[in-house]
Amino acid sequence: MSEFKVIEIKKSVYENNDREAERLRAKLKENKTFLLNLMSSPGSGKTTTLKQTLARLKDEYKIGVMEADIDSDVDAKAISETGAKAIQLHTGGMCHLDAGMTEQGLENIDASSFDFIVLENVGNLVCPAEFDTGASKNAMILSVPEGDDKPLKYPLMFTISDCVLINKIDTKSVFDFDDEAVVERIKKLNPKAEIFFISAKTGEGIDAWCDWLRAQINEWNK
Amino acid sequence: MSEFKVIEIKKSVYENNDREAERLRAKLKENKTFLLNLMSSPGSGKTTTLKQTLARLKDEYKIGVMEADIDSDVDAKAISETGAKAIQLHTGGMCHLDAGMTEQGLENIDASSFDFIVLENVGNLVCPAEFDTGASKNAMILSVPEGDDKPLKYPLMFTISDCVLINKIDTKSVFDFDDEAVVERIKKLNPKAEIFFISAKTGEGIDAWCDWLRAQINEWNK
Repeated sequence: MSEFKVIEIKKSVYENNDREAERLRAKLKENKTFLLNLMSSPGSGKTTTLKQTLARLKDEYKIGVMEADIDSDVDAKAISETGAKAIQLHTGGMCHLDAGMTEQGLENIDASSFDFIVLENVGNLVCPAEFDTGASKNAMILSVPEGDDKPLKYPLMFTISDCVLINKIDTKSVFDFDDEAVVERIKKLNPKAEIFFISAKTGEGIDAWCDWLRAQINEWNK
Repeated sequence: MSEFKVIEIKKSVYENNDREAERLRAKLKENKTFLLNLMSSPGSGKTTTLKQTLARLKDEYKIGVMEADIDSDVDAKAISETGAKAIQLHTGGMCHLDAGMTEQGLENIDASSFDFIVLENVGNLVCPAEFDTGASKNAMILSVPEGDDKPLKYPLMFTISDCVLINKIDTKSVFDFDDEAVVERIKKLNPKAEIFFISAKTGEGIDAWCDWLRAQINEWNK
């Protein structure tokens, strides 16, 4: 049977989040632990994408997953059922994690024993974009049902993400979604963003995303 | 050609939001203006639902729409193209509206000249739930692609909503979504919540939602 801890994280005591994030990032680098901050709207498929990703990378890396949510433990349960180490972070109503809160999670999961840790942030396109968690890289998911206009409405999230996954491409037949328009809007905000079109349900595009991720992890941990 | 104002709203100066919300609500009641606060995740279909709603109610009421977003004016443009009066509120990065910010919008749209005003809140299932805007009623949309587990993860939003619209039911063939489970989860948090299953795309279920809304408006404005 799968087991996972549920951690009630506390509000950070730090006044300068950017400084704490830099400190945390340096510590992760020193310990050769790559931390991915994964963000998106509620229901865009973070957990399903993560399950596909874990299936491909679990034999190469020691992987830990921190699931952040206002409430519930459905995501940590889903991840721990794959055999991966997972913990659930409850934010006590807070809409994002900052560096201090992320560090509380890392201490609880015993970060230094992993090569690769994923922080699945609170489902929200606004607040998580404003707080550096100390992660090595930021990735976000935009799902086809949400619409191709989201970069116009939530520009900061697209600006701070190193990688954008366009998920649920298997549902395109029932939605109006313009691939070219969305890429153009993202690139205008963030010319360096990597963009992958995926279906976490069918597995399409996941290999290319995992190749990118593998390159980031290896570069960080070398 | 459609025209609409874009208002840059400022951070509220009020310390006690609940008190300001009560004051604003009393003023709206006195002026016989019903204010609906419409909330959801990004991309769940607030604007499309609103267009269907306006088409049905525009001959019965004088209606104004306030579109709140971090950035862009795509929603105010879409609404004003229907012939309805719309204004765009930019929150300057803020993830929600409180009563003071709502009041800035109401002053700009000249609230007392309308029977019914809709505030389309920032797309976010977390922060808007924490701030009473002074609205007469709260409604929220959960769309089928987001999944039936959302009441477990974002309980406060479902608790404070008088009405929950389950949107995009036309896409059920490509998603796993359990109608009974979602209703049970919502009712456990909020036994009095009205729940309607709709498709803003096809119009299915919109009449029943408008009947409920009409009853609320008439009760408020009598």
